[in-house]
Amino acid sequence: MSEYLPGLAGVPATKSNISDIDGEKGVLYYRGYPIEQLAENSSFEETTMLLLDGELPTADALSEFSQQLRDNRWVKYHIKELMKTLPATGHPMDMLQTAAASLSMFYPAKDCLTSQDGCEDINYVHNMTVKIIASLATVVAMWEHLRNGYEPPDPRADLSHAENFLYMFTRKEPDPLLAHIMDVCLILHAEHTINASTFSALVTSSTLASPYSVIAAAIGTLSGPLHGGANQRVLEMLREIGSPERAEAYVEEKLANKQVIWGMGHREYKTKDPRATILQGLVSKLMASRGAAANPLLETALAVEKAAEERLGHKGVYANVDFYSGILYNEMGIPADQFTAIFAMARAAGWLSHWREQLGDNRIFRPTQVYTGKPPRDYIPLEKRS
Amino acid sequence: MSEYLPGLAGVPATKSNISDIDGEKGVLYYRGYPIEQLAENSSFEETTMLLLDGELPTADALSEFSQQLRDNRWVKYHIKELMKTLPATGHPMDMLQTAAASLSMFYPAKDCLTSQDGCEDINYVHNMTVKIIASLATVVAMWEHLRNGYEPPDPRADLSHAENFLYMFTRKEPDPLLAHIMDVCLILHAEHTINASTFSALVTSSTLASPYSVIAAAIGTLSGPLHGGANQRVLEMLREIGSPERAEAYVEEKLANKQVIWGMGHREYKTKDPRATILQGLVSKLMASRGAAANPLLETALAVEKAAEERLGHKGVYANVDFYSGILYNEMGIPADQFTAIFAMARAAGWLSHWREQLGDNRIFRPTQVYTGKPPRDYIPLEKRS
Repeated sequence: MSEYLPGLAGVPATKSNISDIDGEKGVLYYRGYPIEQLAENSSFEETTMLLLDGELPTADALSEFSQQLRDNRWVKYHIKELMKTLPATGHPMDMLQTAAASLSMFYPAKDCLTSQDGCEDINYVHNMTVKIIASLATVVAMWEHLRNGYEPPDPRADLSHAENFLYMFTRKEPDPLLAHIMDVCLILHAEHTINASTFSALVTSSTLASPYSVIAAAIGTLSGPLHGGANQRVLEMLREIGSPERAEAYVEEKLANKQVIWGMGHREYKTKDPRATILQGLVSKLMASRGAAANPLLETALAVEKAAEERLGHKGVYANVDFYSGILYNEMGIPADQFTAIFAMARAAGWLSHWREQLGDNRIFRPTQVYTGKPPRDYIPLEKRS
Repeated sequence: MSEYLPGLAGVPATKSNISDIDGEKGVLYYRGYPIEQLAENSSFEETTMLLLDGELPTADALSEFSQQLRDNRWVKYHIKELMKTLPATGHPMDMLQTAAASLSMFYPAKDCLTSQDGCEDINYVHNMTVKIIASLATVVAMWEHLRNGYEPPDPRADLSHAENFLYMFTRKEPDPLLAHIMDVCLILHAEHTINASTFSALVTSSTLASPYSVIAAAIGTLSGPLHGGANQRVLEMLREIGSPERAEAYVEEKLANKQVIWGMGHREYKTKDPRATILQGLVSKLMASRGAAANPLLETALAVEKAAEERLGHKGVYANVDFYSGILYNEMGIPADQFTAIFAMARAAGWLSHWREQLGDNRIFRPTQVYTGKPPRDYIPLEKRS
């Protein structure tokens, strides 16, 4: 038996062609392409195809896939009725897990037991991916209206994925810069090797559960504050700190009490998360476009990052993707509790790519345990227990 | 880096005190107690407490826990409204994943970030367990009526967990033998070390997601035909075979085509699954009580088991828990597609015990991957792709 390593740290759980991280250099690749180049040149639609299929699509294939996504933005009205039964006070990630699981009933998937079932067929993979990615964006945007007591707007087929999401979320014609920023955010969040939620997707995939069940499981895993929930907490932390001059004392206090500083550090990166650098650039771009005076939240963030780096940089602890995404979404007018739901919408592209890869060479995940409990013993009748 | 072992076979993923299997001898222990003794003497309520807390409860503690379960059988009417929006054609496991995820919104859990949050408090663990186990049984039973177009019956507080489930499911006063059989089935399905769904629960727990998200993820994983879905397939297989004299030819054909024989074989057991032996005894007991003539399904099952054992026994392939549970549930008048949902209702006890154990010594699951994809390369503009 292998050695027990808590959290399976350093234990390879899969072979994968999808993404790779160079933690020393701080580089992230999707299918070999550096994330900076994709953020600069690609779209979420194209990046999704790249992740799924392994290669950048031709113009025709991309156009077909984008059209499929547009066609699938409408969800059955029963899904809206379902969402109306949910409490407005609930967390969007719980809504999203609920809605994702329900899609299994509204749009049944195939049984994928044998190769005759056609689950390795590229059309099937694309159809499932399109259905799930288009539906998740729609329900996240719908929920913002429903939980406030309003009917959501209909989707639009004339917009890109990021544009339509912003339109549905805000009910406003999407601003081109904001739509670009959203598109880049979706690209940056689409995939990140075998983290907890992706691993969770693999485990669920390995029993040949439907892709909706897989995504619902991954959403549940992402919802935890140690994973996707962190970007929401970054914003709450920055609001708590309130101003840049209080950043240093806050960081000192957290370190003294061995408490977490949200958005700092990543198991994989020993330097700054490349996605944090890109997001930081987008924050500056957005501020510049508004000709805004210094933004207290951003100023506070920069001060926290500086104070944390000075104290933790030698340990390889730097800002991660969650650190700036919260600030950016906040500037876009998106409520903090929706941040992780937007993360999930994007990450669905990666999860589904791993679902496909898992089915291509499947073995059910059944690790072992180190049993540390009681030795065999005999049942004690109720009346004889003390 | 450790060696890559597909499906993490043989790789210890956790330390656990909860259950243990002796695969050579075919013995299963919950907290040290052999499953046969628990099936003979315990109840699902008591077994749930044993799994959660590590010891058999006192009479007072058991009585309090049972009362809590009774008090929590009613679910908010919005949950029924939610279920009415789901298509009647959907699979009960998809309904159950949806409903479990929605509970997070209806009955919010605590944040469990620090020890001050009280998540290790035994009362909190009991409250969450009670809420989830009571609610899952209620929604599984409700769905049987709702999907057929009928209002479900109200729960009853004067019955045990198994009795109330049977009552709600059938709308009939529960027969004592059937209630006993259901109770034993729930005990047998409550826990089974680190299988795929339990492992999935651990992975989701490790991000500190809510216990509802944990259970919803585990339900998704259990829903796959390679895992919990198998008992439904056993019944479909037996119906397809149709009569005992066709069993041998069926087994031969499946083996020749290297196809699976449902309900046969288990990664952990090299001999007959002890739960299969207990279930087989219950089938006989039920048949005897009815003074029924030979039951063709049971006769077929026995013939399939004999044919399979003759051919596969030397490889350690014997009947597993799924092989007889389907026959038993079928004899109790339960539709085949509900079998896995009943499995999930019971297994929630084990999943929540592992949730508790994981929180007690948590580390986020983030294994590594063996990257086998493309080396770094540069983005190719759309117009230059062939």
